[in-house]
Formats: sequence, structure tokens, C-alpha cells
Amino acid sequence: MSGDLTSYAELDLDRTRRRGYPEAVYCAGKTPEQVAGIATALRDRAEGVTLFTRAGAEHAEAVLATLPDAFHDPVAGLLAWPPEPPEPTGDRVVVVAAGTSDLPVAREATLTAQYLGRATDLIVDVGVAGLHRILGHVDLLRRARAVVVVAGMDGALPGVVAGLIPAPVVAVPTSVGYGAAFEGLAALLTMLNACAPGVAVVNIDNGYGAGHLAAQITAP
Amino acid sequence: MSGDLTSYAELDLDRTRRRGYPEAVYCAGKTPEQVAGIATALRDRAEGVTLFTRAGAEHAEAVLATLPDAFHDPVAGLLAWPPEPPEPTGDRVVVVAAGTSDLPVAREATLTAQYLGRATDLIVDVGVAGLHRILGHVDLLRRARAVVVVAGMDGALPGVVAGLIPAPVVAVPTSVGYGAAFEGLAALLTMLNACAPGVAVVNIDNGYGAGHLAAQITAP
Amino acid sequence: MSGDLTSYAELDLDRTRRRGYPEAVYCAGKTPEQVAGIATALRDRAEGVTLFTRAGAEHAEAVLATLPDAFHDPVAGLLAWPPEPPEPTGDRVVVVAAGTSDLPVAREATLTAQYLGRATDLIVDVGVAGLHRILGHVDLLRRARAVVVVAGMDGALPGVVAGLIPAPVVAVPTSVGYGAAFEGLAALLTMLNACAPGVAVVNIDNGYGAGHLAAQITAP
Amino acid sequence: MSGDLTSYAELDLDRTRRRGYPEAVYCAGKTPEQVAGIATALRDRAEGVTLFTRAGAEHAEAVLATLPDAFHDPVAGLLAWPPEPPEPTGDRVVVVAAGTSDLPVAREATLTAQYLGRATDLIVDVGVAGLHRILGHVDLLRRARAVVVVAGMDGALPGVVAGLIPAPVVAVPTSVGYGAAFEGLAALLTMLNACAPGVAVVNIDNGYGAGHLAAQITAP
Amino acid sequence: MSGDLTSYAELDLDRTRRRGYPEAVYCAGKTPEQVAGIATALRDRAEGVTLFTRAGAEHAEAVLATLPDAFHDPVAGLLAWPPEPPEPTGDRVVVVAAGTSDLPVAREATLTAQYLGRATDLIVDVGVAGLHRILGHVDLLRRARAVVVVAGMDGALPGVVAGLIPAPVVAVPTSVGYGAAFEGLAALLTMLNACAPGVAVVNIDNGYGAGHLAAQITAP
Amino acid sequence: MSGDLTSYAELDLDRTRRRGYPEAVYCAGKTPEQVAGIATALRDRAEGVTLFTRAGAEHAEAVLATLPDAFHDPVAGLLAWPPEPPEPTGDRVVVVAAGTSDLPVAREATLTAQYLGRATDLIVDVGVAGLHRILGHVDLLRRARAVVVVAGMDGALPGVVAGLIPAPVVAVPTSVGYGAAFEGLAALLTMLNACAPGVAVVNIDNGYGAGHLAAQITAP
Amino acid sequence: MSGDLTSYAELDLDRTRRRGYPEAVYCAGKTPEQVAGIATALRDRAEGVTLFTRAGAEHAEAVLATLPDAFHDPVAGLLAWPPEPPEPTGDRVVVVAAGTSDLPVAREATLTAQYLGRATDLIVDVGVAGLHRILGHVDLLRRARAVVVVAGMDGALPGVVAGLIPAPVVAVPTSVGYGAAFEGLAALLTMLNACAPGVAVVNIDNGYGAGHLAAQITAP
Amino acid sequence: MSGDLTSYAELDLDRTRRRGYPEAVYCAGKTPEQVAGIATALRDRAEGVTLFTRAGAEHAEAVLATLPDAFHDPVAGLLAWPPEPPEPTGDRVVVVAAGTSDLPVAREATLTAQYLGRATDLIVDVGVAGLHRILGHVDLLRRARAVVVVAGMDGALPGVVAGLIPAPVVAVPTSVGYGAAFEGLAALLTMLNACAPGVAVVNIDNGYGAGHLAAQITAP
Ligand SMILES: Nc1ncnc2c1ncn2[C@@H]1O[C@H](COP(=O)(O)O)[C@@H](O)[C@H]1O
Ligand SMILES: Nc1ncnc2c1ncn2[C@@H]1O[C@H](COP(=O)(O)O)[C@@H](O)[C@H]1O
Ligand SMILES: Nc1ncnc2c1ncn2[C@@H]1O[C@H](COP(=O)(O)O)[C@@H](O)[C@H]1O
Ligand SMILES: Nc1ncnc2c1ncn2[C@@H]1O[C@H](COP(=O)(O)O)[C@@H](O)[C@H]1O
Ligand SMILES: [Mg+2]
Ligand SMILES: [Mg+2]
Ligand SMILES: [Mg+2]
Ligand SMILES: [Mg+2]
Ligand SMILES: [Mg+2]
Ligand SMILES: [Mg+2]
Ligand SMILES: [Mg+2]
Ligand SMILES: [Mg+2]
Repeated sequence: MSGDLTSYAELDLDRTRRRGYPEAVYCAGKTPEQVAGIATALRDRAEGVTLFTRAGAEHAEAVLATLPDAFHDPVAGLLAWPPEPPEPTGDRVVVVAAGTSDLPVAREATLTAQYLGRATDLIVDVGVAGLHRILGHVDLLRRARAVVVVAGMDGALPGVVAGLIPAPVVAVPTSVGYGAAFEGLAALLTMLNACAPGVAVVNIDNGYGAGHLAAQITAP
Repeated sequence: MSGDLTSYAELDLDRTRRRGYPEAVYCAGKTPEQVAGIATALRDRAEGVTLFTRAGAEHAEAVLATLPDAFHDPVAGLLAWPPEPPEPTGDRVVVVAAGTSDLPVAREATLTAQYLGRATDLIVDVGVAGLHRILGHVDLLRRARAVVVVAGMDGALPGVVAGLIPAPVVAVPTSVGYGAAFEGLAALLTMLNACAPGVAVVNIDNGYGAGHLAAQITAP
Repeated sequence: MSGDLTSYAELDLDRTRRRGYPEAVYCAGKTPEQVAGIATALRDRAEGVTLFTRAGAEHAEAVLATLPDAFHDPVAGLLAWPPEPPEPTGDRVVVVAAGTSDLPVAREATLTAQYLGRATDLIVDVGVAGLHRILGHVDLLRRARAVVVVAGMDGALPGVVAGLIPAPVVAVPTSVGYGAAFEGLAALLTMLNACAPGVAVVNIDNGYGAGHLAAQITAP
Repeated sequence: MSGDLTSYAELDLDRTRRRGYPEAVYCAGKTPEQVAGIATALRDRAEGVTLFTRAGAEHAEAVLATLPDAFHDPVAGLLAWPPEPPEPTGDRVVVVAAGTSDLPVAREATLTAQYLGRATDLIVDVGVAGLHRILGHVDLLRRARAVVVVAGMDGALPGVVAGLIPAPVVAVPTSVGYGAAFEGLAALLTMLNACAPGVAVVNIDNGYGAGHLAAQITAP
Repeated sequence: MSGDLTSYAELDLDRTRRRGYPEAVYCAGKTPEQVAGIATALRDRAEGVTLFTRAGAEHAEAVLATLPDAFHDPVAGLLAWPPEPPEPTGDRVVVVAAGTSDLPVAREATLTAQYLGRATDLIVDVGVAGLHRILGHVDLLRRARAVVVVAGMDGALPGVVAGLIPAPVVAVPTSVGYGAAFEGLAALLTMLNACAPGVAVVNIDNGYGAGHLAAQITAP
Repeated sequence: MSGDLTSYAELDLDRTRRRGYPEAVYCAGKTPEQVAGIATALRDRAEGVTLFTRAGAEHAEAVLATLPDAFHDPVAGLLAWPPEPPEPTGDRVVVVAAGTSDLPVAREATLTAQYLGRATDLIVDVGVAGLHRILGHVDLLRRARAVVVVAGMDGALPGVVAGLIPAPVVAVPTSVGYGAAFEGLAALLTMLNACAPGVAVVNIDNGYGAGHLAAQITAP
Repeated sequence: MSGDLTSYAELDLDRTRRRGYPEAVYCAGKTPEQVAGIATALRDRAEGVTLFTRAGAEHAEAVLATLPDAFHDPVAGLLAWPPEPPEPTGDRVVVVAAGTSDLPVAREATLTAQYLGRATDLIVDVGVAGLHRILGHVDLLRRARAVVVVAGMDGALPGVVAGLIPAPVVAVPTSVGYGAAFEGLAALLTMLNACAPGVAVVNIDNGYGAGHLAAQITAP
Repeated sequence: MSGDLTSYAELDLDRTRRRGYPEAVYCAGKTPEQVAGIATALRDRAEGVTLFTRAGAEHAEAVLATLPDAFHDPVAGLLAWPPEPPEPTGDRVVVVAAGTSDLPVAREATLTAQYLGRATDLIVDVGVAGLHRILGHVDLLRRARAVVVVAGMDGALPGVVAGLIPAPVVAVPTSVGYGAAFEGLAALLTMLNACAPGVAVVNIDNGYGAGHLAAQITAP
């Protein structure tokens, strides 16, 4: 099912012109051969950075065979090429992970924002069960122009953060949890119903989308 | 559909002996005539207080025709007879309502606990969107042996309270909100997934059940 | 159930200091008396504008009895006091309604952004069934720093808009539609799964939240 | 659990007479032995082509042991015997895949339509995130009498295509995506609520059903 | 909320050119004033027939004030103007209603197909509980090039009909039923999972969409 | 929408021959005129008893205008004609209602069984919250050949009864309850998952179906 | 986690006395050691037959080590001891499987009915897509006193069968299917909403429960 | 992804002071390296006992490498350090498991309560299908001040127990069951709708939360 590139992909090479940000390659559901074919095509034609998201081990291998110096973060399932993120412009993006288990998604958001041109901070394990932890970071949070908050289980942290700061909060529900967490549904609903306005919700586990959105909000 | 009492009700008059708390009459779904018939039977036979819950205007009228001096709170949809709650014993129950709109359910919980023999406190409109409000009550909360927290929309408050105090939190999701609040489902899931342990969840809008549970936990 | 203000509300008067935007009063679920009581308290103490959202006819009457010169838009269910929005600062917010039936929510978003200090544009009835309509507005859309897109039924418009512009799209699913629209659930899911990154989703019918978020993104 | 054919299957050999299209064998949930037994029976009795759908590696092996020259597409999980599709009649069927990951389902649709007697075209990776891609194919689409559109994630493409052309669109939601895609549910709901009329929805990932429907619509 | 037409509607007057079928006006969610405004605009500019769907009594009144000779079917909630359907072309469309309660939706489908240019037949109350009823119509059904089957409750009829005939079946789930019918969800899922291929599903209660689709399939 | 009978109904007059039980008329969703038309037709042609189920006040009026001596139970929404149930044959059916609020459905079941030819017993308000109540009826229950158990809220009673007796239990979930009862869904799921085998579940609030099933099981 | 029997099981040895049918051992979720311990205990104390349901390979091994002559059907995941079913009494049970893939569940039902003392018939692959198949068996079906119908995907067959015969139909939805079959939910809802009365629904894939219910209905 | 502790965890070392109970480490979703790093940090700094919950084999290994004498129960997925639970204080906690398959969750609850300082009793396999079993334990249950009831499938046991005793019941739904048990959803809903008041529900399979809550309720 690899074959000619045009038999499986029609790259959106115009995206940088239209949007200012390049297309990213969603690897899940693609064969390693297809990802390799796309990597080859982008190597020759793309301008700016290319991200490969949700890349399993075999996808990563296929990308690295074509673009050997690509950056690879296996925890986040992310590859980037060229490997160096651009010099940061715009405002800083602060990324907050409610728990340790939310780190993979938080890193995906952080790296995405970096490769789209932002400087980032990362705060980890400051969920609402021990409120003093997030309160200890309020000064940093209040200075940000966009804060990404990643949380599973009850998903309560983004609303709490939003109530404390002027900037918009990009909320990422994660599938962390079990039982009535329903693979992130509980956290998703919590975030959509946050009492504090200013919460921008993205898909469950969508660190890429959150980083992208934060980069747009903080664009120069 | 009124007819003979036995054609529509078999009262659980043994409940006080078994459980220490009398049966309550769930009025929703009963005709006013049936509620009146039950009120008559309980007037003659019940020991201790009888609660009529989820009583609409017509139910209340029917009860009051039989038990004219019964206590009636139309906001909570609750009637009690005899009208005087017992002398409080056990520990105090603190009831917290996240928003103004959660008051009817919070009152149902408060009154139930009172009529089952507890002294109560009520704190209103201290949702997580303005965290300083609940933090201003921590001293009172930390002294309680049971706290009922009533919240709609994101339902985040019970988990936040539980993380601050030693006592169990009885969490009541309410149907306050709209859209993806899904009539209280969002708040319910949030509470079931609260990051802080010590959260006891009851049915959506079930102030009666919450007050009952809190009374049991704080029993002498 | 009106009584003393403190028996039903603890206003978050600190919010403007913390966040730069004042608390809004969510009227649904409050009695007209409570809304009137809050209006009175805010008249005497609030700085900046106060919004009353999701106000039915009786809520509006209660507010206007206290604040007779308040602005009132019955379509959006919104009141504002003082009635004059502040002088616009920051970047313009463009609001797009996919269909005529989405107008109430779109107006709520537009008015919220205005009262929080932004200039706004409103584009109506440009759903994807006739793509040339939205394409005819691309120039305006591409110049915005935040676009609010309101859509019911399939909720496809926000993703299409996001794919055409550099700015973030605040997507508001509406309950417009029937059957498998499931009161806005279909549109909500569509928006959360938009193929184009840069879509910030808020609750179903939450024009207030969308306007607030857009105002934050475009803040000076 | 193989045993005598009649102990596990009662083939619908009459289907071609009734409907004009032969029965297909749904392999998922059948043992390889059962599939082999059915293949043997059909080899001896069937008229016209037989399709084996949703065939895993072991099912394919079992079919090929009986019908060694059968056509086999492992990506689509489809086998056909006799291996040559009939000479095309009726109108052409155009199949569109929104993303690369939708290709397996799109191929199942394409091959089914071919084996039921239609000529087909296949267009890949033209999702709404880069609208110029599908717009570049409008001429071809407008000439078709049936277009199959396969899409996961937001499932927005079929409605967009339907709005551009006179022919009916057979919409196939796929399970491509994650989180709130809910295994294809999001795309399914989007398609059922498409703003443009003329969208015929089939089950999630049901390429076979889509190809069959398109073949019926374009029958001579 | 009426005001200038452009403040609430941007009519898709190009649709007949693009698709061969004119835009229809979805009345639910529009004010009578808006519907009247659209009616006026279409009277002056539209070519071909205009349908007003899901029109309540007040919508109908508003249309008839502007287009007094418009056709109006209150059961189907449908108006058409000019009132005479075009001379039928293409193939006949057969519409089948499983039960009497499905008639309003079946009529909406029938009338839509007629106003889009098809001759129609209507068969009523032939659900699967008494199978001989639908079997008594097989000859008529087998001659059709498109059959619309409308069914609520278990939604089993479309799959049964599809198994008997060569033509595609457009299946319309209805909200007829109660309890676990879940407002048409049960019928919808049944139809999406029909064992017989050739079932094209549209939204719950969407008679308009079904009639439109059938008209496209049977176009000359 | 009344018109000729054949324009809206095709009565299943053959059902008694096929099944031994006559067709019942489901009134919800039919106009009173249609119900009247059907009543007239059945008066002239039906053999055995005819039941009209889910009949509102207007439906009842329409039936009684045609069949003035028909039996009418407004609580159960049921009419029967001729008014006298047949002489009972077969085994007795015991119907159990968990709470008073379940009585309308329990009566629908009881009356249906009676009109299909069974003798019945009715036990009311014996839910699991006071277990001694149902245990006090075990002797009667153990002698039955079919027991119908009607319950809302947690729906626990049918499983408890099934565990005590040899006969099959027909379980009817009701929409009694609120919040997470989700209109009977909770009770339905409980019954489908009853730990004790021997529980036959019917639709939520489907007293008619339960009575019919019990009559079949106890047929002579 | 094996240890003493009383540390993990309290066998319901009284069940045969109470109900006439012995307890069955649900193996899923038990360790092989626990199943072995229960098998040992039952070998020494049980009267009548013991069924082990939902037994995987390791469970089966553990049972056979203790009860080497036990009957074992790996397709149905069922073991029985003593291996000989009792001499049949009561009426015959007819079991119908809609498709080949439904066979495992159909066999579980058949074997359960046999071991509880009934003679059985099994009809396979007669789904509604080819209606002549089930119609060819109507004579046999009409003579039964209980028919079990097992079906996945659309789950339409039980309602069709119920409409043809006097006996009750025990309907078993299966998880056969994909996409919007939602692991059997679609079939379950179809069966609960069957237009024909007389359908007794059990849990998805619950062949054991269906066989048990059918045995009770047909008891002598 | 291990690195410095602060890069992935910010331990809530203050929790014992605030709440009286120490933080527990949720292992699912953490890498073994992270768990090991946390174990090291807690060894050096924590006061009181530390629990590691939902620990798989690799997590356990990592903990035991750091804290070789830690207590480990692989069935419950729980580790505790120091290995000796504190001397019991407060009231006894009774834990009840409805079936053998609920044992892992019941043990998690039991061990949690023990390590938080309570004496415990464990009763197993007393589900409502054989009611005499739980009734045989009523004396013990009635003396408790908190009873944890763990149940899957229909989840009916907690409501039955609550109706028999004065103490609150902590109800834990489990994912035991299949089909319409929907991974514990059925049991969860049953418990939330229990007819008997006094049922405190926690998340599906949340033995830890149940043990914690029971320990709080029975605190000295
Ligand atoms: N991890 C991700 N989550 C959601 N969307 C993504 C992700 N990665 C890429 N995308 C978007 O998905 C679209 C479709 O991807 P593709 O299937 O590669 O054509 C791309 O245009 C991206 O903008
Ligand atoms: N508001 C309520 N919410 C939930 N359960 C209730 C409520 N009020 C009463 N109950 C319980 O519901 C049971 C059934 O009530 P009844 O229908 O009156 O027999 C009673 O025994 C009460 O314990
Ligand atoms: N229409 C609205 N939708 C969602 N949240 C709102 C809305 N209006 C106000 N809010 C927020 O809801 C919070 C609670 O409102 P209240 O019940 O008035 O205390 C307020 O602090 C607002 O920030
Ligand atoms: N991939 C598929 N998806 C849906 N239905 C199918 C598929 N393949 C075959 N079918 C239909 O499923 C019916 C049942 O198949 P079988 O289980 O083989 O008897 C056949 O009559 C086919 O029409
Ligand atoms: Mg943590
Ligand atoms: Mg408030
Ligand atoms: Mg429009
Ligand atoms: Mg692509
Ligand atoms: Mg009918
Ligand atoms: Mg009762
Ligand atoms: Mg078959
Ligand atoms: Mg057991």
C-alpha cells in the first residue's frame, strides 16, 4: 500500500502560506512505508519545520531512515525535521500537567509550541488534590499570554487556573484515569463546563492541537 | 387511583428500628391523593419525623390538608412532620453550595440532616472560579466531620474541598448548567473521578440522600 | 428565597483585579429576586461593566427595575450595565454564524466581546452547504486575530475556517438541529475532531464563553 | 465447529435473482474452517462473483486454499472470486478518501463497486483542512452519478462534497482518529447532520456497504 | 431580530446551478419574521420551487402572508412555492411508512420528492410485526429505482425491504416509540447495521433529506 | 390526516390466527381521528378483544365515541373492547410493583394479561429498600408460573425476585426516578445484568409488552 | 488468591431447592485456582448438574483436572458435570442463530437448555437479509413453546420471528458486528423496541441466560 | 522520561498535615522509573505509610528495588511501605464482595482501610441472587459504622445492604460482567439510584477510594 505518493497522499504544501504554520503528518493509521514516502516528499519540498505526530516505534524508524537527523521524542510520539526549532518569537507559552501521567501529552504540546516558534515553560504534577502546588506558581501563570493545562481524571485544573489569570487557558483532557473517567470523557466534559470563562478545549490527548493553538494565540 | 392504602403503598414502618432513620415519602410520581393517604397513615402510626421529598405544589397541599402544621419549604420541595426537628446530636454537618443556582438542592440536604438530628451550617456561592471564596472558609470546613458539597456545571468543588480537609465529602452533582453539562452528567463524572480521595457521590440533585448520608456519618 | 444577599451569593468582586474581566451573572437557575439582589449589590460596588447572561424575561425585568438604563438584548438573553461598552482596544474579533438559527448565540458572543472591550464584525449564514459564501469572506477572516465560529447541525464550519486562516478559531457548537444532532452533541464532537488544528472549543450554546475567550486572545 | 455446511450456514443463493447482486461472506466472527466450507459450497453453486469481506490473514488463507486464483487485497481485507471483475456497466463511481488513513475503507468501497460491475475513480487525501485539494477535483465530482466519500475524525468532507454536486454522496465514517472521535461516532454524527442534503450514510468503516450502494445507484 | 435580510441570511441562490436542486428553508429556530423576510427575497429572486421545512403554525402563517398561494401541508410541516410541483421526470419513488405514526415524516419525504420532480407512491402501516403486509407489496417495490422506508421503534423494516429488491433503500429512522427507543436512536442504529447491504441512512425524522436523496437517485 | 382508513393503516387482522393474540393499537403518535377510524374498522371486523394502549385523554374520547361501552383505565392509558376480559385460562400471572410510582405501568401489565385471558394478582410497594416486604410474599411468588416485576430507580427488585422462585420473571424498567436514573436507563441496565438468571427484560415503561409476554408464558 | 474456599466463595447450594435449577459458575474474572476449588466443592456436595460458563482454556483445564469426565464445549466456553444432560422433560426449545457468527452464543443457549432438562432444536444462518430462510422454518417455530433467537448487527430477527408465532421469543443480542453495532448495543436496542410483543430480552451475548429462561418457560 | 524528580513529580508531602492521611502514588500511567524515583523520595521524606496503587508487575518490581521490605499484594495491585499497617484505631470497617470476581477490588479497599489505621472484616460472594447469604451476616453488618460493598454486574447489593443497617454504605461498582454491564456503568448507575438512602458511591473499581472513605468515616 505504499506505491506512488499520489496514490495515498496529497500534501497540503500551501498551508504555511495560508496559515503561517506547516502541515503536520498524523502517523497513526498510516503504514511506515507511507510515512517514509511522505517524509521523502517533504524533505525535498517543504519549507519550515515538519512535525510527525502520534508516531509509534515503526513510524519513527521509517522517518529516521529518510531524515536521519530528525528530532525524536518517543514519549510524546513526535518527530521534527529539521531538528532545531526556530528562534522563539511572540510570547512564552506555559504548559501545566496536572499529574505525572499527563506528561506525554504535555510534552507533545510543549514541543509543538517550540517547533512553531515559541519559548515554553513546563510545570508538572500540580493537580487540585493539593491546591498549594498550583497556587505556588500563580505569579508565573499570571504573566503568561497563553497557558496550556493538561489533565485527566476529573479534569478540574484548567478551570481553577483560568479563574486565577487573565490569559486564555487551552485545556487538554487526557485519557488518564479509569472507570467513569471513560477514556477522557469525564475530563472533557468538566473542561467544557468550567465555571470560569476563558477555557479553550481541544480533543482528548491532543497535545499537538493544544500546542498549535497556544502558538497561534501568542504569535508575534 | 387513590383507593385503599394497601392498593398503592406498603409503608416501611420498620425502618427506624432497622436503620435508626424513618422512611421518607418520595412524592414525584405519586398522585396528591396517594400522598394524602400516606400522610394520614403515617400520622397515625409513624414514630419520629416523616419527610416528604420532591413535593410539588399539589403534593404539598395534600400533605398540609392532612398535617396542617407540617413544615414546608417550597424551594427544596420538602415537607416534614412533626414540624420541629429533633434536638441536634452527633457532629455538625457543613453544607456548601458552589453557586446560587445550587441552593434548592443544598437546602434539601440541610433540612434533611436537621430533621435526622444534626446541627448544620450552610455556605453559598463559593465555586472554584473564585478560589479565595472557599479558601476563606477552610477553618470551618476543617473542623467538620462531614461536609456536603453541592455543585453543577463542572462539579469541581467537592474534589477541591476534599483535598483540604480530613472529613469525608458528600458530593451532590446538580443539573445546573446547559449544553455539555448534560443535566448533571458532567458534574457527576467529575465527582466520581475526583483526584482527592474521600468523595462520596450521590445521585444528581439528590439533596435528600446527601443529607441522610451526612447525618449517618456524623451520628453520635 | 431572596433574603439577605449573603444567604445566596458571595460575589467575586476581586475578579477584575485577578483576571482583568469582571464576573458575569448567570441568570438561569436564579430567581428574579436573587438576580435583583445581585444587581443592587453590583450597582453599588462593581467597577467596570457587569453582564447578566441567559436572562429570561423575568430576569430582565428584575435587572431593569434596579438598573433602568441597562442594555438589554432579548435575543441573546443578555443585559449589560452600564449600558455603554468601553472604548474598544486590542484587535478586532470576527464572529461567524453558520446559519440564521445560530444568531442568538452569535450575538451573545459579539456583545460579550464588545462589553469586554473589543471591536467586532458579524458574518451570518455562511455554512458549508454553500461553500462560496464563506470563501467570499476569506480576506476579512485572514486579517483577524481571533474568529468565533458558531454552528449547529454538523458543526463543520469552524474546521473549514481554521484551515484557511492564521488566527485561532473559537468554535461554539449550538443546539440547532434535530435527531442525531442530539442537542448540539454532534456539532461539539465535530469541532473537537476538526482536522485543521487551531480550533478552541467551548460549551454548546456558550456564546458568552466564546466572546470572553476571543476578547482575551485579542487583548491589547 | 466446522462440521457439515448446514450446521453453520444457509447460503442465500437466491440473492442474485432477488436483488441482482450476490451474497457476500462476512468473515469476521467466522472460523477459517467455516469460511473455507462456505468457499467450497459457493465455488460449486454460486453464479456471479463472490466477495469475502473483513477477511483477516487466516480467513484469506482458508479461501485461497479452496479458490487459489481468488483476488485478494489484504489492505481492504477483501477477496473476490472469480478474480476478474465483470465488464463495467452503468455509470462511473467516484470514491474519495479524506485522509491517507481512510484508504483501507476507501479501497473496500472501490473494489466492491468494481466487482459489482462499475468503473471507479479514487481520489485520496483531500480533507477539508486544505480545501483547495477537494476544490481541485470538482469537475470530476460534478460529472459522477454517485460519489462515495470516506472520512474519519470530524467527518466533514461528505457534506462539503454534497454541497458542490448534483449526485448523491454515499458517506462512510471511519474509526480513524482518537479521543472524542469515539471510534467513528463523531464522524457518523457529522454525516447524519450534514447541512447539505443528499448524503446517504452507512455504518462506520463499512466500505463494502458503500460500494454496494453506489453500484446500485449507478446501475444501468 | 428581523431587520435587513443580510443581517440574518445569505441565501444560497447558486444552489440550483451547482446541484440542480434549490435551497430549502429550515424554519425551526428561525423567527416568523425571518422566515417571512426570506420568503420575500426568494419570491423575487428564486428560480424553481422553494421548500420551507419544519414549519410550525407561526412559520406557515408568515410564509402564507407573503406567498398566499403557497402549498401547505401542516402534518409534514412543509410549504412549497410555487404550489404546483413540476411535471415528473426520472423514475418513480416509492415511500413506505412502517406505522401510522411515521406518516408525517413519510409525507415530508413524499412531498419533497414530488417538488423536486418525481412521481411517488406511498405505502403505509406495513411494519415487520405482520410480515405479510410488506410481502404483499413486493412487486411494486421490486420495480422501483429508489425506495424510501420510514420506521421508528425497532427500525427493522428498511433492512427487510432492502433484502428483497435491487434498488437502494433510503432509510429514515423516526422518533416514534418510547423508552429505549431513545428518540429514534434505536431505529437509527438498526438501520446503520442492517444485514442487507443497500441501505442509505439519513438523520432521525429527516423526511426532507430522504425525499431529496431519492430524487437524486432517480434523476433522469 | 384522517381520510380513508387505507391511507393511514393496514390492520394486521391475521394476527390472532398467526399468534393467538390480536393486534393492539398503539395510540401515541396517532391523531384521535386515526384512532377513531381504526376503532370503527376493528369494531366491524375484529375477533377477540382489542386493546388501545398509551391512550391520552383525546385518544380515549375518540375510542369511546365509537365504542361507548369500551373499558377505560386512564391511569394505565388503556382501553379494551369488548369491555369484558375473557374467562381466564392457563396459569395465574403475579404482577409486582416496586414502588407506588410504578403503579401505572404495573396496571397496564395486569390489564393486558387479563384481557389476553389470564387471572392476575397485584402486589405493590415492596422495593428492596425494605426487604421484608417482598420476603413476606415469597409463598405466593413461588407458586406462580410467571411473575412480572415493575421497578424504576435502581431496578433491583426483579433480580431479587428471580433469585427466590422457579418461574421466569418479566422485568419492566420504569422511567420513575431522576438524575442518573436517566429516564429508566439505569433500571434497564440493572435488569439486563441481573445476577440471577431467569429475567426477561422488556422496554422501559412497557407494561403492555410485559403483560403480553406473561400471558404467553402462562398460556394453557 | 486461591486459599480456603470460604475466602473467595460462598456457594448457593440451596438454589436447586429454591428455584429448581442449580447455581452455575461464572468463570470469567475468577482465577483457574478458584474455579478448581469451586469444582472440587461442588463435586462433593452438589446435586444435579453444574455448569461452568464463560470458561477460557485455562478455566477448562482447571475444571477437567478436578472433574476429568466433565463435558466441554470450547466454542461455547461451557463445561457441564456430570457430563450427561438429564432425560428431557417439558416442551422442546428451538434456538435460532441469525448468522454463522452468532453460533457460539446459540450453542451456549442450546447446551444450557439441554442441561436444565429440555430437548432442543438449532436453526442457523437465517437472518432477515434473506427472509425466505426463516420463513422456511415457520412450521417448526410455530409448534414451539419457547424460541430463543440470537442475532447481532441489526438484531432484527427476534421481532420478525415473534410476529409469526404464538410462543414467547427469548432474544439474545450478540456483539457480532462493528462500528455502530457498538458491541451489541444496536441489536439490544432493536430487540427492546421490537414492534411485535412477546420478545423477552437478555444481556448481550448471554446465551446462558437465554437457555435458562427458555428452560423455565418450557418447564413441565 | 525519568530524569530529575522535579521534572515529573511534585509530591504532596503536606497532605498528612492537611488531611490526616498521606498521599498515595497512582502507578498506572507512570513509568517504572518514575515510580522508583518517587519511592526513593518518599523513603527519605515521608512520614506515615505510603501506598502505591494500581501497580503492575513492573511497577511493583521498581518499588521493591527501592523499598525491599515493602508489603505487596499483586491481586490488589497494591504496595505499602513501611510494610506494617498502624495499630488500628477508630471503628471496624466491614468490606463485602458480591462475587468472587470482585475480590481484587475488595482487597484493595480492605488493605487501604488497614493501612490508614482501621481494623477490617471481609465477607465474600454474597450477591443478591442468593439472598440468604447476605441475610446471614446482618448482625455483623448492623454493628459496623461503615460498610464497603463491592459489586459488579447489576450492582444491586449495596442498596440491599443499606436498607438493612444504620451505617453508611460505601458502594464500589466493578467492571465485572459483560455486554450491557458496559465495564461497570450498569452497576454504577444502580448504586447512584439505590432506593435506600445512605449509599456513598465511588468510581468503578476504585477500591482505594472506598477504603479511604471508610477509614475517614470510622476515624476515632
Ligand atoms: N496528532 C494530531 N491530532 C490531530 N490532528 C492532527 C495531528 N497531527 C496532524 N493532525 C492534522 O490532521 C490532518 C490530517 O492529517 P493526514 O492524515 O496526515 O493528512 C493534518 O492536516 C494535520 O493538521
Ligand atoms: N428525594 C429522594 N431521592 C431518592 N430517594 C428517595 C427520596 N425520597 C425518598 N426516597 C427513598 O425512596 C424510597 C421509595 O419511596 P416510595 O416510592 O415513597 O416508597 C423511600 O423508601 C425513600 O427511602
Ligand atoms: N452564560 C454563561 N455560561 C457559562 N458560564 C457563565 C455564564 N454566565 C456566567 N458564567 C460564569 O458562571 C459563574 C458562576 O455564575 P453564578 O452562578 O452567577 O455565580 C460566573 O462566575 C461566570 O463566570
Ligand atoms: N463487510 C460487511 N459489512 C456489513 N455487512 C456485510 C459485510 N459483508 C457481508 N455483509 C452482509 O452480511 C450478511 C451476513 O453475512 P453472513 O454472516 O456471512 O451470513 C451477508 O448477507 C452480507 O450481505
Ligand atoms: Mg501527583
Ligand atoms: Mg456565583
Ligand atoms: Mg442558511
Ligand atoms: Mg492528509
Ligand atoms: Mg400498525
Ligand atoms: Mg415505597
Ligand atoms: Mg449469513
Ligand atoms: Mg457467587
